[in-house]
Amino acid sequence: MGGRHVAEITAPGAADLAAILDLSARTGVFSKEEVATVQELFEAYLHQPGHGGYFFLAYRGKGQVLGFACYGPVALTQGTYDLYWIAVDPEAQARGIGGALLARVEAEVQARGGRMLMVETSGRPDYDRTRRFYERQGYSRVATIDDFYAPGDDLVIYRKRFEH
Amino acid sequence: MGGRHVAEITAPGAADLAAILDLSARTGVFSKEEVATVQELFEAYLHQPGHGGYFFLAYRGKGQVLGFACYGPVALTQGTYDLYWIAVDPEAQARGIGGALLARVEAEVQARGGRMLMVETSGRPDYDRTRRFYERQGYSRVATIDDFYAPGDDLVIYRKRFEH
Repeated sequence: MGGRHVAEITAPGAADLAAILDLSARTGVFSKEEVATVQELFEAYLHQPGHGGYFFLAYRGKGQVLGFACYGPVALTQGTYDLYWIAVDPEAQARGIGGALLARVEAEVQARGGRMLMVETSGRPDYDRTRRFYERQGYSRVATIDDFYAPGDDLVIYRKRFEH
Repeated sequence: MGGRHVAEITAPGAADLAAILDLSARTGVFSKEEVATVQELFEAYLHQPGHGGYFFLAYRGKGQVLGFACYGPVALTQGTYDLYWIAVDPEAQARGIGGALLARVEAEVQARGGRMLMVETSGRPDYDRTRRFYERQGYSRVATIDDFYAPGDDLVIYRKRFEH
């Protein structure tokens, strides 16, 4: 994960919405409903006071959005944050973009005084790579709730604690 | 839990907001921020299409609101519901009002095709009674995430599955 990644990650603006939605759809892991949720949270981020509690980051390569992340504080907690999504363009996988975005999210969460970052993902076999990604990045599996998303589709909760 | 309870539980309207907020504040377990969240969700329930996904129920005795519950579907799941709150007037505790509200929530969730109801609460000693209440009502502890709400204040997740 080189320093060059850091320089390419910035807060996206209204002009990036179409690229973010297009990228989400092309990953193949966002349902239609989830793409609509990305749009809803992005609009909260753009227009609501305090970004509505949703912070987006975009990774750019040659001017194009190649990945994005969305995170925010969990309501009614002191210093606990949720990572809502990290998505990378399917044509730009395996270049460390996801890891660079996650590192930036963690840095921002810590800068905001966050104590921990939570990640919810699926226990389905097609999410094996996603779960291994978080495990490699130092996340611990703290809960598994069977059949949560749908029959046979478990919720898996990961967490990383930060030192202060 | 007598049938008379069932008859006294109805969907609240705009005129009940003040009583619901007053009751929330008087329980002593809602922080100011949580009372504000109750108001926010109640307004979504009143004004948004599909109640914004938040369903409220009020328990009335002699015309007064003595308790309320709020629940709704968990986004991006098939048939999983969250119980956001059950609150009972501190002067009307130990009369089975909480149990009656919970039974009605469960009946409504099942009528809407729900497969399970999730409850999140705190592991703090002052929530012992709350946790015992859910355990008595047939809820299983499916996860404990230490220090989630604050240092020393764990998240405890309960669940009840429904048969179809």
